[in-house]
Amino acid sequence: MRTSQLLEQLMEGLRCLPGVGPKSAQRMAFHLLQRNRQGGVQLAEALSAAMTEIGHCSQCRTFTEEDVCGICTNPRRSENGLVCVVESPADIAAIEATGQYSGRYFVLMGHLSPLDGIGPSDIGLDLLEQRLKTEQISEVILATNPTVEGEATAHYIGELCREYEVEASRIAHGVPMGGELELVDGTTLSHSIVGRHKLA
Amino acid sequence: MRTSQLLEQLMEGLRCLPGVGPKSAQRMAFHLLQRNRQGGVQLAEALSAAMTEIGHCSQCRTFTEEDVCGICTNPRRSENGLVCVVESPADIAAIEATGQYSGRYFVLMGHLSPLDGIGPSDIGLDLLEQRLKTEQISEVILATNPTVEGEATAHYIGELCREYEVEASRIAHGVPMGGELELVDGTTLSHSIVGRHKLA
Ligand SMILES: [Zn+2]
Ligand SMILES: [Zn+2]
Repeated sequence: MRTSQLLEQLMEGLRCLPGVGPKSAQRMAFHLLQRNRQGGVQLAEALSAAMTEIGHCSQCRTFTEEDVCGICTNPRRSENGLVCVVESPADIAAIEATGQYSGRYFVLMGHLSPLDGIGPSDIGLDLLEQRLKTEQISEVILATNPTVEGEATAHYIGELCREYEVEASRIAHGVPMGGELELVDGTTLSHSIVGRHKLA
Repeated sequence: MRTSQLLEQLMEGLRCLPGVGPKSAQRMAFHLLQRNRQGGVQLAEALSAAMTEIGHCSQCRTFTEEDVCGICTNPRRSENGLVCVVESPADIAAIEATGQYSGRYFVLMGHLSPLDGIGPSDIGLDLLEQRLKTEQISEVILATNPTVEGEATAHYIGELCREYEVEASRIAHGVPMGGELELVDGTTLSHSIVGRHKLA
């Protein structure tokens, strides 16, 4: 545009957001400049604070600016002794949104991937082992993704639980509720047939 | 999530961007935290600088942090004496991208809209009148949008040009290049028939 260097830097900066190409970056920059400068300033402050102050919970490894996150410090979340293992903080958000789970979490921030050099300690399994050893955990729910790596990671953690005589379970996989059978992929469909239940 | 207030503030802040709902805001926040904190910090700085320092060019009214923008200060852009009037800085970007125009611009930052109380001085026409009066302008190209308001605004500015005996022209409207005739809306098609040219 050759009219504003700061505008060009803003458009360039916005492109670090996933899914934002040159066109959307331009639309976003003009929108903020023309209609919502206050919102832009607040976003700048929120971004700056989040990027520099958010670390990981020392118990469950999810994102938090505290030493221990709000879920881990809540005594009511430890009553049932459940710990749900997920790959990412986004998975916590998804599970919390169901309202079906009131236990604690453990976030791997990834999954085992020997080819990429990601081993047990890279996904916090030394910390999880410590917790299995010292805490009253009634059951570990393995909610890693239904991918090859997620399954392998679940299997590995299952073995770890067995060592410490802590019960481990895997979340159910199958045909999504409300989905049409003919649109479900073959792997999921086979899985749902193999994992069928008797009618109550 | 109840795990991080700063994360919630970041997701809230991202929603001031056009087209960003709760799901994308979450995906963006996690992406930056997990994979690109440096990019997030740079975006915060670019946002903050842009929101507080970018104003309007005192000659063409486009966005710039300078008193006069890079296009208006470039002597080669005034050689042909052309001034192209557009509704928004995004239109300048679009026209510059064609590489077909080497004159200057005038940005209305909107259009006439009496019902919303937006009159001539709200879209800078006092400044444009001043320029028509004092500068050597060979032709004003009216490139406002092909909408009712854009047409009315173009007509109004055309009259203003006539007062100062400056030639005014309207950009051509019609069937988009590369488009299929049957997919073009009726208004555009009628316009392209009424505005037909003799073959050279
Ligand atoms: Zn925690
Ligand atoms: Zn200018």
